[in-house]
Amino acid sequence: MIPFNKPYLTGKEAHYMYDAVYTGKLSGNGKFTKKCQQFFESTYGFKKCLLTTSCTDALEMAAILADIQPGDEVIMPSYTFVSTSNAFVLRGAHIRFADSRKDHPGIDEDSIESLITDRTKAIVPVHYAGVACDMEKIMAIAAKYNLLVIEDAAQAIDSYFTFSDGTVKALGAIGHLAAFSFHETKNIISGEGGLLAINDDRFSKRAEIIWEKGTNRSAFFRGEVDKYGWVDIGSSFLPSETIAAFLWAQLENLDDIQSRRKQHWNTYYEGLKEWAEKNNVGLPQIPNFATNNAHMFYLVCESIEQRSAIIERLKSNNISAVFHYLSLHKSPFYNEKHDGRELPASDFYSECLVRLPMYYELKQNEIEQIIEVIKA
Amino acid sequence: MIPFNKPYLTGKEAHYMYDAVYTGKLSGNGKFTKKCQQFFESTYGFKKCLLTTSCTDALEMAAILADIQPGDEVIMPSYTFVSTSNAFVLRGAHIRFADSRKDHPGIDEDSIESLITDRTKAIVPVHYAGVACDMEKIMAIAAKYNLLVIEDAAQAIDSYFTFSDGTVKALGAIGHLAAFSFHETKNIISGEGGLLAINDDRFSKRAEIIWEKGTNRSAFFRGEVDKYGWVDIGSSFLPSETIAAFLWAQLENLDDIQSRRKQHWNTYYEGLKEWAEKNNVGLPQIPNFATNNAHMFYLVCESIEQRSAIIERLKSNNISAVFHYLSLHKSPFYNEKHDGRELPASDFYSECLVRLPMYYELKQNEIEQIIEVIKA
Repeated sequence: MIPFNKPYLTGKEAHYMYDAVYTGKLSGNGKFTKKCQQFFESTYGFKKCLLTTSCTDALEMAAILADIQPGDEVIMPSYTFVSTSNAFVLRGAHIRFADSRKDHPGIDEDSIESLITDRTKAIVPVHYAGVACDMEKIMAIAAKYNLLVIEDAAQAIDSYFTFSDGTVKALGAIGHLAAFSFHETKNIISGEGGLLAINDDRFSKRAEIIWEKGTNRSAFFRGEVDKYGWVDIGSSFLPSETIAAFLWAQLENLDDIQSRRKQHWNTYYEGLKEWAEKNNVGLPQIPNFATNNAHMFYLVCESIEQRSAIIERLKSNNISAVFHYLSLHKSPFYNEKHDGRELPASDFYSECLVRLPMYYELKQNEIEQIIEVIKA
Repeated sequence: MIPFNKPYLTGKEAHYMYDAVYTGKLSGNGKFTKKCQQFFESTYGFKKCLLTTSCTDALEMAAILADIQPGDEVIMPSYTFVSTSNAFVLRGAHIRFADSRKDHPGIDEDSIESLITDRTKAIVPVHYAGVACDMEKIMAIAAKYNLLVIEDAAQAIDSYFTFSDGTVKALGAIGHLAAFSFHETKNIISGEGGLLAINDDRFSKRAEIIWEKGTNRSAFFRGEVDKYGWVDIGSSFLPSETIAAFLWAQLENLDDIQSRRKQHWNTYYEGLKEWAEKNNVGLPQIPNFATNNAHMFYLVCESIEQRSAIIERLKSNNISAVFHYLSLHKSPFYNEKHDGRELPASDFYSECLVRLPMYYELKQNEIEQIIEVIKA
C-alpha cells in the first residue's frame, strides 16, 4: 500500500523532545520555541515569529490583530481549507469569496478589486500547493485601498516570490501577517503546529500580548512593566516545548527534506507531462514569479468522472490519491451567507483536482509505479 | 534553591511519545487521545471528553457551545486567571464579576443571584486550588434561571463534591460543561494541554464539530455522512498525539501523584496550623462538601506588607513562593467595563495570598525547612 502521506522523522525528534522534557520546561516559550522562531526570522526574513498550536490559531491571531469587527469584510479564495475563513468568521467577519485562477487553484488576483467595499478590511491570499499568488499585484491593490494582507502560507514553507524589479522574498515575508502550518501532512511537521509571521511592526507588541492570553507577561519578563495583568483579548496560542523540540529536528533537516521532495515532484512531472497533454489533464503550473517547494503534486482532470476513475484505479492498485477542498461558498455553513456569485473555477478544482502521494520516504520506483497506473 | 513548581515525570512520558511518533500518527485524535478521553470518562463520570491544546481552549469551546452572543452576560469570580474571562469576552460577552468567599478564594455563591439579569447566559464557578465551590447551590440557581454552568476546573482534577443527599460527584461532572488544565504547573501535566468535559448531551455533537475546525469530519469517519464539509464555526482545538501520549503516562500514575501531593499538603498544614492561628494567618479551608486534591498550599496573610515580608524571607532562604491572581475587575483591560461594584474579598486575596512550593519531588525535609523559615 502506498499511502497519500507519511510523516517523516529526521531521527532527532524524540531526542530533542527528551531534552525539552528533562530540562523541566514543558509549557510554551522555552528554549526550542525561541530557536525555531529565530530560525524562521533569520532564514526567511520574517520580522517577528511566534509559534502557535496550529495554523488555524495563527490565522485567529491574525484576525484579532487585524481588529476584525462584526460586519467587516475579508476577501479570500473559496477553494481553501475551512480555517482560512473560520478564523475571521469567529471575529464576526463576512467573507467575500473570490474565484480561483483558471490556470491554478490560487485566488484570481484580477477578481479581487471588484470585491472591495467600504467594509473590506483584509485580503487573504492562499498559496495553494506552496506556489505563490501574484503578491505584487495583491500588495498593490491592498496599498491602494489601505487593506491588510494576511498570507495563508499553510503549505508554503521555503517558497519564494520574485517581484518585477528582481527582488526575491520568501512567502510569508510579503504580507503584513502570514500563517504557516506544521501539521503532519506538511513538508516540515510537528504533529499539530503553526507559526504566525509578523512583518508589520505595528502588530509586534500586540501579537505577543494576544499570544500570552491577553497579558503583558512578555514585557514583564523583559522588565518593561513591574507587574503583569490582563490588558487585551487573547488566548493560549503557544505550543508545548515538546512540540517545538520536534519541529527543531525537522528544521535542522530542511534542505534535505526539500531536495528530496523536489526530486519526487520532478519525477512525477517528467513522467506524466506527455500523457497529461495528450489526455487534456492539467499538471501543477509554476508561474515565473514563483518557486516550487514541492509540497504537493496534483492532476487536474477534465471531469469529476475522470477523477473518480483515476482515484479508483489507483486504489485498486493499493495507491491512495485524494481530492482536496470543496468550495466554501457552497458549504452547508456559508451557502446562505454567500452573495450568490458563481465561482466556476473554484467548483472546477473541487470536482477535478486529485493529489498524488507525496512524502519524503516515497521511493522513485513507487512513483514510477504510480505513473504507470495512471497512464494505463 | 527550592522552586515553586517542578514538572514531574513519571518515567514513561518519553516512551509513549516515541510510540506515538513511530506509529506515524502525529496529528490529533489518535490512539493516545482516545485512551486519555476514555480514562476521564470512566474514572470521573464525565459524559464525553475532548482533549484540547489548553484549558483556555476548552473554555473557548464552552463559550461557543453556550452560544454566547455580543452583549450576553456571564457571571464568574474576579479572582481567577484571565482565560476564564477572555474565553467569553472573545465571543462578545460582558462579564459580571462576583466577589470571593470570605473563607475561601472561590466565588461567593450567595452573591450570584443578585448579579443575574435578562442577559445572563452562564455561571462559571472556578474551583480554586482544586477545592469545590458549593455546586449544589450553584446548580439550583442555574436551574431556577435556566442558566448554563461551566466549571472552570483548571486546578480541580481528582477532586469531588458531596451533595446534601450524600451523592458524590467528581468536579467537572456536575456543570453542563467543564474545563481542565494540564499545564506544567498542574497535578497532572502535558506541558500545555487541557480537556473539555461535556455532561449535557445537547452539546455532544456540536462539540465534536467545533473541535474539528467546524467540520463534520468525525461523523464522516463514523459513516454517518457521505462527505464532510464546513458546517459551523470552530477551531483547531485538538492537541498533537505526542501531547496526549505524555498525558497518558501521567494518568497511569495518577494515584501515586495524588497520594504524594496530599502527604506534602498535610505536612504543611500540620506544621503551620498553630503558628497560623497565633499570627492571624489563614490556611486553606476545605468545606465539608469538598475534598482536597492537594493542588496548592497557600497562606492568606493579614496584609500585603506581611505577604511581601514572607515572600522576601523565603527568597533570601532560596525558596520561591509566589502570589497569584490580581482581581480582573480592576485589570487595565476590564476596569472601565466593570460596573463599579467593590469586590473586597477578591482584592484581599490579590494582596494577601501566597502560594508555597508544591510538587511531587518536593522532599519532606524541604517542606520542614520551608515551615521553619516561615515560622522564624
